[in-house]
Amino acid sequence: MASPGSGFWSFGSEDGSGDPENPSTARAWCQVAQKFTGGIGNKLCALLYGDAEKPAESGGSEPPRATSRKAACACNQKPCSCPKAEVNYAFLHATDLLPACDGERPTLAFLQDVMDILLQYVVKSFDRSTKVIDFHYPNELLQEYNWELADQPQNLEEILMHCQTTLKYAIKTGHPRYFNQLSTGLDMVGLAADWLTSTANTNMFTYEIAPVFVLLEYVTLKKMREIIGWPGGSGDGIFSPGGAISNMYAMLIARFKMFPEVKEKGMAAVPRLIAFTSEHSHFSLKKGAAALGIGTDSVILIKCDERGKMVPSDLERRILEAKQKGFVPFLVSATAGTTVYGAFDPLLAVADICKKYKIWMHVDAAWGGGLLMSRKHKWKLSGVERANSVTWNPHKMMGVPLQCSALLVREEGLMQSCNQMHASYLFQQDKHYDLSYDTGDKALQCGRHVDVFKLWLMWRAKGTTGFEAHIDKCLELAEYLYSIIKNREGYEMVFDGKPQHTNVCFWYVPPSLRVLEDNEERMNRLSKVAPVIKARMMEYGTTMVSYQPLGDKVNFFRMVISNPAATHQDIDFLIEEIERLGQDL
Amino acid sequence: MASPGSGFWSFGSEDGSGDPENPSTARAWCQVAQKFTGGIGNKLCALLYGDAEKPAESGGSEPPRATSRKAACACNQKPCSCPKAEVNYAFLHATDLLPACDGERPTLAFLQDVMDILLQYVVKSFDRSTKVIDFHYPNELLQEYNWELADQPQNLEEILMHCQTTLKYAIKTGHPRYFNQLSTGLDMVGLAADWLTSTANTNMFTYEIAPVFVLLEYVTLKKMREIIGWPGGSGDGIFSPGGAISNMYAMLIARFKMFPEVKEKGMAAVPRLIAFTSEHSHFSLKKGAAALGIGTDSVILIKCDERGKMVPSDLERRILEAKQKGFVPFLVSATAGTTVYGAFDPLLAVADICKKYKIWMHVDAAWGGGLLMSRKHKWKLSGVERANSVTWNPHKMMGVPLQCSALLVREEGLMQSCNQMHASYLFQQDKHYDLSYDTGDKALQCGRHVDVFKLWLMWRAKGTTGFEAHIDKCLELAEYLYSIIKNREGYEMVFDGKPQHTNVCFWYVPPSLRVLEDNEERMNRLSKVAPVIKARMMEYGTTMVSYQPLGDKVNFFRMVISNPAATHQDIDFLIEEIERLGQDL
Repeated sequence: MASPGSGFWSFGSEDGSGDPENPSTARAWCQVAQKFTGGIGNKLCALLYGDAEKPAESGGSEPPRATSRKAACACNQKPCSCPKAEVNYAFLHATDLLPACDGERPTLAFLQDVMDILLQYVVKSFDRSTKVIDFHYPNELLQEYNWELADQPQNLEEILMHCQTTLKYAIKTGHPRYFNQLSTGLDMVGLAADWLTSTANTNMFTYEIAPVFVLLEYVTLKKMREIIGWPGGSGDGIFSPGGAISNMYAMLIARFKMFPEVKEKGMAAVPRLIAFTSEHSHFSLKKGAAALGIGTDSVILIKCDERGKMVPSDLERRILEAKQKGFVPFLVSATAGTTVYGAFDPLLAVADICKKYKIWMHVDAAWGGGLLMSRKHKWKLSGVERANSVTWNPHKMMGVPLQCSALLVREEGLMQSCNQMHASYLFQQDKHYDLSYDTGDKALQCGRHVDVFKLWLMWRAKGTTGFEAHIDKCLELAEYLYSIIKNREGYEMVFDGKPQHTNVCFWYVPPSLRVLEDNEERMNRLSKVAPVIKARMMEYGTTMVSYQPLGDKVNFFRMVISNPAATHQDIDFLIEEIERLGQDL
Repeated sequence: MASPGSGFWSFGSEDGSGDPENPSTARAWCQVAQKFTGGIGNKLCALLYGDAEKPAESGGSEPPRATSRKAACACNQKPCSCPKAEVNYAFLHATDLLPACDGERPTLAFLQDVMDILLQYVVKSFDRSTKVIDFHYPNELLQEYNWELADQPQNLEEILMHCQTTLKYAIKTGHPRYFNQLSTGLDMVGLAADWLTSTANTNMFTYEIAPVFVLLEYVTLKKMREIIGWPGGSGDGIFSPGGAISNMYAMLIARFKMFPEVKEKGMAAVPRLIAFTSEHSHFSLKKGAAALGIGTDSVILIKCDERGKMVPSDLERRILEAKQKGFVPFLVSATAGTTVYGAFDPLLAVADICKKYKIWMHVDAAWGGGLLMSRKHKWKLSGVERANSVTWNPHKMMGVPLQCSALLVREEGLMQSCNQMHASYLFQQDKHYDLSYDTGDKALQCGRHVDVFKLWLMWRAKGTTGFEAHIDKCLELAEYLYSIIKNREGYEMVFDGKPQHTNVCFWYVPPSLRVLEDNEERMNRLSKVAPVIKARMMEYGTTMVSYQPLGDKVNFFRMVISNPAATHQDIDFLIEEIERLGQDL
């Protein structure tokens, strides 16, 4: 690993070029650096050459005094008293950075060097010759480095090295051949927005401390509701820490709508409530039911057809069954884009049933919601406009950096009534501005991370049409993959027909298995193929794709494409790589 | 607002200095830029002068060809075909950035320019002559700018302007005179770590996709448990999205420990459960009880003494009362550092009672947990080692950027049993590495943001002793404030005695009120003083401090100090500012 101490600020120390003794070089650097916006150039110059040597405003010709030039100190003494010492990270600590008295120079140097490391990482992430992962087993990583926390501080050189080490072993989630999760890719505008969010370091609970972000959340949620199809974008919503929590919100609000007394009295005061969702739905529905005191037994899993879509007749049958037992159906969660198959439940049929039995209709479109941005594909969510609530994760199909999940609610005010506790130290009623912008009390959380800015800025940068183009491209790539493997030797599709989302589910059958009869032994051997290929992918670091069993189907690959960097060639590469790594199995 | 298009990449266009026609300047810039670590210098040079003009490795003397120099395009035609056009943001869009084919150059330029904006903001944040907030009413901000989301993309110049506008109206949460929330300050190492986290853009659920971060979470939670005082740091824990969710986790796990059947059967299968917490505790306990189906009526608020500490005899009385009614006490949540008074409940006495009645003891040390890092102040949490679970938010007193909240649990394995749902697509049982590092199934969330890295990196940079110094300093400043105002004319303390935490609660009584008798009219007028002063503080933008009523006490100021940038002079300033803004009331 390159030592950060021998980097930017230590020029002239290694190869003799960029001679720091040459005043014209130094002067010219400063002249150029002056052109940074906002005076940062001045600061960088001052950092390099000392305040006294700030170049004249224009056209001056006297060279900076040689004695004032600063480069990395190499005296190796501690404490070091060289005039150059400020810019040698080995002798700098966190306490030398802002708000320290003379902290501005080392702070700008340090943050710029961190940025340098990050920019390298970004560029490498998109380079196909870079490994997706430099995989090491947990015990290897634990042994190779000392990660422990100690009493004494480390110097900034060590801190910069930790940044490099951490990124060395990180998954390159923006890599064109990273397909492992529903969230892949690294959007440059989204990344910039997330850096800005970190720098603003505030909290969503009130307009008082997050004026712009609160307004942007209002604007963005309204736009999302318009796209869902609720008249005038009316309704409510929140950005929550992920789809599981968004789904839990839906369950919480649905319960409150039917039995508002549950807030004070708890579940003891209400009859047994039953939620319905498909057998292919996300596990967060059960997780939410367990947490909310409803219980996992009260989540009824409705049958799916062979494509993974909820069967409406089974839904109606199970609702009637529950009612006959004296239970109260309170929520149906239909899925728009299931996790494994990418299936879209028939929302119109589900909506009819919910209307008939007066049940809250939730749509978990965490994964499929992105398709609403595409004129070509949004028909797959027809009926979503009839939902009472929708989970939609822009951090999945829309490529927004993690985390960015929205829960949208059709009825306004319900979230507030359900969750508000009127903390007087936060939501003072005698503030001098319009209190309707203090939205924190509708959240389950108190403090809440700013998740909206990256979505909003990406939306401004791409436009709705930009998201549409991204989504259409990913779906086209999935169709391309499907068209290649459906008739290719050694592949079996998990379900028939073109993919509806970007999920393509298949087995790779190595040559040795192709000759076997379709019996238990073959299934047993086939179940071991995907895990071995996946392990090899990670060890080579060439690509990553997920696998899992589902019901009676043994381990199969689930390819998903949300990565804007992926191309047809990457799909070709994936196929070749699976065959290369699996042909001997 | 400065146009970003006339910034870094457009040098030579405005004032004639840094002449781009002067080859020696350009050459010298590149020589210096070559010294950036990791080849970024090469990339910046290539960006400015074109690949063909990359300077020779060392000592070369031929100037770059004049025709290949690139600066901001000023032709004002669209589409522009000038060779300079690449670096003019007005003609660049998100689609020109990576992973676009030739995206590397504009990406590096764009991200560097964003960074330039962020660095300016950081430096300004610490400058006392900067306003803490440039306050505008919601309707003003909505009218002044168009924040709407449209079909068509905006160019990168507009995107950079949005970044500047957003920061213009942002609260400077790192400003030395920002005291408004429990979370204040902006730590430079923490900020760098958060930028890195954004760049890594991954998710905590498995070792597979977050190898280093998962290990760092393990190491950091263990260290926090050691500091709490659990033998060998054993136990469990998680970083959750804020203290409210951490407290909800505690309630969820306590319930599961006593009645594991609640996971499947729901609250219908268990007797009525009762939780106890003080009347000064955080509202999230009630919020959690409402969500978990326990109900807010089942949260009994225990009396506090005049300093805001829970009265143990009242706790025992209420537990017995609940038991007599046939209810089941299942959780006591003691607070270490209440939100308004900063009070520490008597943990040892609470622990004795919890032991006697076999009740889960939770300590909400979201705000006070930081004092565990101080040898001088940690006695205030004596008894925390007897808790079954602890909430501790490093994003509050320890100055870690938002969000960073930990829930620590003494018994290992309980979180996993309570929350796991065994999603086979995520937690495959046949992976090639040690599955004990796939910790995602113990979370309520599915995807989970990486919150640990900023805490870990700050801890390495500061050491435990660095956190200790920060905490000791903030408490010393609070004592300083107390010592100034306790006998100063025009101030009344809300409670007597030196502050235990950094909370100092007081009324400012303007001269016109000092002569009034202590009756309802005076109280009524006094209640309006703090809101008006606060509104004026925001309009002037000079400082920010919170106020609220509490029980029968009308609006008073709650000063809290967690900001590492604050000094004695800033405390003096606050007092003067309150008097300046409030003397006419």
